[in-house]
Amino acid sequence: MSSQQTILTGDRPTGKLHLGHYAGSLAARVQLQHQHRQFVMLADVQALTDHAHEPQKIRESIYEVLLDYLAIGIDPNKTTIFIQSLIPALPELTMYYLNLITWNRLKHNPTVKLEIQQKGYGEEVPAGFMIYPVSQAADITAFKASLVPAGDDQIPMIEQCIEIVRKFNRLYKTDVLVEPKMVPSPVARLPGIDGKAKMSKGLGNAIYLSDSPDEVMRKVKGMYTDPGHLRVEDPGKVEGNPVFTYLDAFATDKTKVGELKDHYQRGGLGDSIVKKYLLDVLQAFLDPIRQRRAEFARDRDQVMSIAYRGTEVAREVANNTLLEVRGAMGMNYL
Amino acid sequence: MSSQQTILTGDRPTGKLHLGHYAGSLAARVQLQHQHRQFVMLADVQALTDHAHEPQKIRESIYEVLLDYLAIGIDPNKTTIFIQSLIPALPELTMYYLNLITWNRLKHNPTVKLEIQQKGYGEEVPAGFMIYPVSQAADITAFKASLVPAGDDQIPMIEQCIEIVRKFNRLYKTDVLVEPKMVPSPVARLPGIDGKAKMSKGLGNAIYLSDSPDEVMRKVKGMYTDPGHLRVEDPGKVEGNPVFTYLDAFATDKTKVGELKDHYQRGGLGDSIVKKYLLDVLQAFLDPIRQRRAEFARDRDQVMSIAYRGTEVAREVANNTLLEVRGAMGMNYL
Repeated sequence: MSSQQTILTGDRPTGKLHLGHYAGSLAARVQLQHQHRQFVMLADVQALTDHAHEPQKIRESIYEVLLDYLAIGIDPNKTTIFIQSLIPALPELTMYYLNLITWNRLKHNPTVKLEIQQKGYGEEVPAGFMIYPVSQAADITAFKASLVPAGDDQIPMIEQCIEIVRKFNRLYKTDVLVEPKMVPSPVARLPGIDGKAKMSKGLGNAIYLSDSPDEVMRKVKGMYTDPGHLRVEDPGKVEGNPVFTYLDAFATDKTKVGELKDHYQRGGLGDSIVKKYLLDVLQAFLDPIRQRRAEFARDRDQVMSIAYRGTEVAREVANNTLLEVRGAMGMNYL
Repeated sequence: MSSQQTILTGDRPTGKLHLGHYAGSLAARVQLQHQHRQFVMLADVQALTDHAHEPQKIRESIYEVLLDYLAIGIDPNKTTIFIQSLIPALPELTMYYLNLITWNRLKHNPTVKLEIQQKGYGEEVPAGFMIYPVSQAADITAFKASLVPAGDDQIPMIEQCIEIVRKFNRLYKTDVLVEPKMVPSPVARLPGIDGKAKMSKGLGNAIYLSDSPDEVMRKVKGMYTDPGHLRVEDPGKVEGNPVFTYLDAFATDKTKVGELKDHYQRGGLGDSIVKKYLLDVLQAFLDPIRQRRAEFARDRDQVMSIAYRGTEVAREVANNTLLEVRGAMGMNYL
């Protein structure tokens, strides 16, 4: 991976971004933008597949997520940030790819199956939701992304994309579509402040990049720890204890974290002391982010114009791929 | 229907058009273009849903079908003829509409179910084929078509479209989408020359608008008639006898057709005599069509430019609808 590659990544704009997003993907983007050609997509079309009833929320989240991106250091001069719904090549590619895979194949996508279960859709799953892996294949291939950062739960999506790429290139005797490789997420999923396996806005257990110092304090104070650690002198567990997981993810002084872990496990270290340290760590991490966020938020139009400029660039790249795709299919009529 | 309405109709370009197309829809279009705003779509994207492996055939058929249109008198100054794949608003609308209907609903579309059976797809039906009713809803609504000429087998498609229109307008508190009404086909389906219920290129039983006089002669001579009419003096049946069905559809001298029917039913009228008359009728009908077709075929670029000019007009209409749709959804970001 030493030579420059093309990366596609992004977020569904259905709310502000939180520490889980940062640890799982945002931090890596800030690094990757220096080595690679990086596209970051505000996936509003994909967000609609299960939020068709609240496009206003998506609209507002586009702005909030943009602020989050800029605040954490995604640099629009290095990374192309764009809005999915403003790239007409994407739905068109989706339509062509839908002819290359079967209904049956879509039905058996393990990630989609699990999500349908989690969302309680049953038979009433929106058709758009069922086909979103194909729409993702359009996103990835439109930018000829060779690297796609993703968690393990996204493996079936990448496999689906590779399948479409191979089928297309074979059927139309071409090599215009590029097979993506997955870049595994650098850290395991960050748990919620309630100790649940996943930090998620849906579960109400997230610390947001935009949370005020008071909100962060309130959330850290209320965090789940080791339920068996009743008295200060008791030995406590650090595994499955989100306070220590967050320290591992965000504290820069690893020695200090190691000492705290040892002390906690021996007994004699109170939760409130560890939480106080975590709070310091998080505030130190979040302070400059909050500050940059507030600066950018002074001019909403300018923030949006960053997305629009990125969208112009992305539109041209995707259109060029679409022209090649249509050419390979013999559909270059004009 | 006295006031001017908007009509959307069209064909899947998967081969030349035949007498069945003429009787079932083309003749009506020539009439309707004088009263209404008519859009005729060359549905190449829809053709790909079950012809993904032969886009070259679709490409060539676009030209042939265009020639058929012009030859029978569809007037590009009155009718907007356009190519579906060159209207980017259509796949985008399709994506939004897919979120408004369930997977389950798509699965139970009776027309699609029957077609899957006829094509022998079973579980291996392309996903694009399953969703084509939604794509049709995008076509119809993009042009705000209030009238859609269609056969009885298309009733479920119109119902699906109306369902999407109502769901969209209700959900986004708008009236931008227009409910279409079906215009029933003016004649019953034309049988094939083999007497089978449907003239179809797939069944190899069609007389094409572009067939040469010799081909038409050969096909008429070989036509299925009443299998019980063995000797000239025997009484023959006119019901289910395609020779008489074609006469009903294409002969202008209805008195003469009535006399032939009576004579045939009484006995004493040979098949060859009736076929000879049908041949005269068809040649008289097809001669001017062939002549105009040959004239247009002298300049392929000019024929294609008619479709491109129509496509420009159609693109603007569809884009305006898309802007209204995005506005209703609060997605008018720019």
